[in-house]
Amino acid sequence: MLLRDLGEFGFIGRISALCKIHGSDVIRGIGDDCAIIKISPHENLLITTDIMVERVHFQINLQTARSIGAKALAVNLSDIAACGGTPKQAFVSIAIPEHLDVAWLEDLYRGISELAAEFEVDILGGDTTRSLTDLVINILVTGLTRNDETLFRNGAQQGDVIAISGPLGHSAAGLELLQKQRESSTQIYSPLINAHLQPKPHISVGRILAESGACNAAIDISDGLSSDLGHLCKQSGLGATIFEETLPVAELLRQASRELTTDYLEWILHGGEDYVLLAAIRPQKFREVKLAATEAGADLIEIGQFVSGSEMKLIKKSGIVVDLVPKGWDHFRS
Amino acid sequence: MLLRDLGEFGFIGRISALCKIHGSDVIRGIGDDCAIIKISPHENLLITTDIMVERVHFQINLQTARSIGAKALAVNLSDIAACGGTPKQAFVSIAIPEHLDVAWLEDLYRGISELAAEFEVDILGGDTTRSLTDLVINILVTGLTRNDETLFRNGAQQGDVIAISGPLGHSAAGLELLQKQRESSTQIYSPLINAHLQPKPHISVGRILAESGACNAAIDISDGLSSDLGHLCKQSGLGATIFEETLPVAELLRQASRELTTDYLEWILHGGEDYVLLAAIRPQKFREVKLAATEAGADLIEIGQFVSGSEMKLIKKSGIVVDLVPKGWDHFRS
Repeated sequence: MLLRDLGEFGFIGRISALCKIHGSDVIRGIGDDCAIIKISPHENLLITTDIMVERVHFQINLQTARSIGAKALAVNLSDIAACGGTPKQAFVSIAIPEHLDVAWLEDLYRGISELAAEFEVDILGGDTTRSLTDLVINILVTGLTRNDETLFRNGAQQGDVIAISGPLGHSAAGLELLQKQRESSTQIYSPLINAHLQPKPHISVGRILAESGACNAAIDISDGLSSDLGHLCKQSGLGATIFEETLPVAELLRQASRELTTDYLEWILHGGEDYVLLAAIRPQKFREVKLAATEAGADLIEIGQFVSGSEMKLIKKSGIVVDLVPKGWDHFRS
Repeated sequence: MLLRDLGEFGFIGRISALCKIHGSDVIRGIGDDCAIIKISPHENLLITTDIMVERVHFQINLQTARSIGAKALAVNLSDIAACGGTPKQAFVSIAIPEHLDVAWLEDLYRGISELAAEFEVDILGGDTTRSLTDLVINILVTGLTRNDETLFRNGAQQGDVIAISGPLGHSAAGLELLQKQRESSTQIYSPLINAHLQPKPHISVGRILAESGACNAAIDISDGLSSDLGHLCKQSGLGATIFEETLPVAELLRQASRELTTDYLEWILHGGEDYVLLAAIRPQKFREVKLAATEAGADLIEIGQFVSGSEMKLIKKSGIVVDLVPKGWDHFRS
């Protein structure tokens, strides 16, 4: 059997079965944004890792070395944010094809270290080796949370507000603009393109959610709203209702949608890599948590509600109810 | 400038300069076998990572999926051993070319998880993605040590015994046998070939060295004796003298040496990937530590002494003294 037949999550399921867990200090293994390990009576260690491959995750001719490096770190910081953590250390492994210039590689590391410095993350090591073809970057990030502030995927309650910490679909639109190489429009659409090339991890929102005591579950939107909400629903044993009218749609997204003749709702519902947080928040406390986010210069937008059952529904502006079917990114099927 | 002009250690030096460390909890960043982070008044967290690339580190047609997986973990466990640690968790990132069968990949993970189980290591996650060409495996391992038992590269003292925890050169000989594809001799030479394909991390020796209170510095031999002893010398501000007559030479190594017309001393001094530990041990305590190792079914072999200065010398059996020049593995020059 080949991976494209099994799919990414089918494969992860199979290998997870091979990985039994023994340590009593392990709170979460495979299946959350981070592995979560108890290291003291009050503190959990968070660990997350992401591997990025040239021509699969990035194109050297479409973006700068700096932005490739920064994004490779950002996607990991976003996982720490989803667990409510403070990122601490990063480890960078890199397999380098011979033709890449040292100056280009230094720019890549500059991109990593600038973003690391912004979040006071120490780069403590890694590994460097040769690659015969593509550049491969694997970054692992550690973080810390208090035991009673750690956010999981599986705690959502019926009636919880579904909130996002920023607009969706910008990254998917930016990617499509890049792929169709509309160079004339690069300037106009730079906010969308930058959303794809230089996502910012929502660390401070993650901390606000964690400290609020009102966030029952969280995840970062890396695969797309439909997929990542699906993870929260499945792991919490709930269904969800999303209201289309509450989904923020930037004018620029509408404009790109018209120009590319792609429905922006597809980008919003299924486009990945926005790296905003998706959270389940106790309804009585939502206003208070949103206020805390606003005061910190961040945002929390109510887009729906967790409901009993296991189905995800989208209530269209017209009032029609449709199934929200996960069709986000699968690395082995896409 | 290209990497082959700068070399692996030149490149690491440059990128290290970009990675400033801020955290007061960081005991070691880049430059030791593991990053070392203080997580409690009594305990240090160890983190190490290794990236392995198809056709650079392994050949799919020369070895089994199980042995590739096991080795990818073993090289990390060996770094934990070099710091005197107990390994705890592993994270496996993998970029998979489309043609690989799921059953083959499950065997790879079986190799990882079997070795992990042997050392009670939990596999807590990782990342899976597509690769367009080569298989890439990055494993990261965490470990723990007591603060006062952590082994570093930089503590060797003048007069310390230089000891190794097993024979050297077997892996290099095994690799050469594999490369020259002497299939007829695979049976005879299987101990050498297995030393290359299935190295065993010397965790228990590492723990014995750590608990002894007599080990002033340690490293694992991954790049070759001359290179790795060079690291201990440089970081400890010392030189070293190695006595050829004390270096163990298995009869099988002599036999392979004759058959391949390669000097076995080259394998022993410069061949990498044996993953035995190289340690600086206080001379007054050496017998005691060696006894503890023997009782645990392991070994410690005295092969030389740390001396003042910065030069490494080899005293040949003939009594002639020659310079021992590091010429171990460099990923960008080899």
